Amino acid sequence: MVSDSRNNNKIGTLYGVSVGTGDPELITIKALKILQNTKIIAFPKGIHNQKGVAETIIQEYLQPHQQKLSLSFPYTLSQETLCVAWEKVSLEVWQYLKKGENVAFACEGDISFYSTFTYLALTLQKIHPEVKIERIAGISSPMAAASAFGLPLTMQEEKLVILPALYSLQELEFALDWAEIVVLMKVASVYAQVWDILAKRDLFNYAYLVEKATTNQEKIYTSLRNYPNLKLSYFSILIISQRKHLVSYQ
Amino acid sequence: MVSDSRNNNKIGTLYGVSVGTGDPELITIKALKILQNTKIIAFPKGIHNQKGVAETIIQEYLQPHQQKLSLSFPYTLSQETLCVAWEKVSLEVWQYLKKGENVAFACEGDISFYSTFTYLALTLQKIHPEVKIERIAGISSPMAAASAFGLPLTMQEEKLVILPALYSLQELEFALDWAEIVVLMKVASVYAQVWDILAKRDLFNYAYLVEKATTNQEKIYTSLRNYPNLKLSYFSILIISQRKHLVSYQ
Repeated sequence: MVSDSRNNNKIGTLYGVSVGTGDPELITIKALKILQNTKIIAFPKGIHNQKGVAETIIQEYLQPHQQKLSLSFPYTLSQETLCVAWEKVSLEVWQYLKKGENVAFACEGDISFYSTFTYLALTLQKIHPEVKIERIAGISSPMAAASAFGLPLTMQEEKLVILPALYSLQELEFALDWAEIVVLMKVASVYAQVWDILAKRDLFNYAYLVEKATTNQEKIYTSLRNYPNLKLSYFSILIISQRKHLVSYQ
Repeated sequence: MVSDSRNNNKIGTLYGVSVGTGDPELITIKALKILQNTKIIAFPKGIHNQKGVAETIIQEYLQPHQQKLSLSFPYTLSQETLCVAWEKVSLEVWQYLKKGENVAFACEGDISFYSTFTYLALTLQKIHPEVKIERIAGISSPMAAASAFGLPLTMQEEKLVILPALYSLQELEFALDWAEIVVLMKVASVYAQVWDILAKRDLFNYAYLVEKATTNQEKIYTSLRNYPNLKLSYFSILIISQRKHLVSYQ
């Protein structure tokens, strides 16, 4: 068949496009150009029938003629359910790529940093090793949070540890013993235990917590001593900055 | 004096503007708007009479009516020399701020991540606590490097350690014992010793080295086993990704 033969010679490119942490202006020129010049725009589907973070960020940049492809990445720890879901979204994307159409996948934060995109890309590469993928780096939450605080995230010889979540409190104790700067992503579910460690180590003056950094719902907590319990959103991040010399920030 | 009195009421804002890692399109919309709407554009002075990285990145975005302010940050370990230099650049910037003029300081990478801007901001805050500072987050080199490799920098429960430089090989050994992903900035001066550790731990298949990521001089090394010695540029970064399951990247 002529059309198949032609299509086999020209596979579309999957662009992994970082769209930043919330403020739509924290997208790069490069990412915006790709979003505006690609017909098929994919993104992770939101939960509870609401728009997802990436979709919300990019909505002002899209035109009516662009086709939205909302892809379902379930929130579950079941590896089997996840693998099935990753194969499904890979096939959805492949339907376009195999016809020579490009797909831009918008992802909050940076495309390589604990990103949903990784599972789509790895699954696609496994099923269709010939797939062409390009990644556009973006603003990640530790850097966005530091700017929101007016805090140097790292300086001079400081070591930085980033923990994606807390599976044991020993991990955090270990990190605090070793590195000057410790970033704890997804702190919401373990906040009360983390607070105890901050208290034990007298680190309240060195702990910076932000919810939904750079969005219009950004909320900064400056003196955690007064907040042993907090009901935080999923997008909360804690920076513990154990500098020897306290410096002033704004 | 009327003009002084008026000026005292209106101090300008110092914007710390991240301009990314090299590709001028890896600047955010927000950063670009500030650069294009501020008259005084400061940046770190280059060495050997060449343009600095940040100045090179932004040159295509500036207009002739904008005033360039090239600030000297010496490359030295002498804390005394550094403090003198930081005070000098702070005063240079303050001359504009105190008159109510805004200054945009362009800095490569992210403004909070091992950034020259930190020393200017902290010194200014010390001398003039009333100074107003805003930071615009940007693309940092670990994320830019990961995208250049087509590598997920971090995924799932992986821990990330970033070492700004290597002051002892024990630090690297320690990091590799503990974290799945270790990023070594400024690897040039210690590359030969790091290579020995990669050999000892059989990590060549997990080590990714890039010089000048995202610039038109980007150079990626994929099989370090063959390069026990390399003369690398200052802007070289090594990612060691000790994933249990080898995954394919492109």
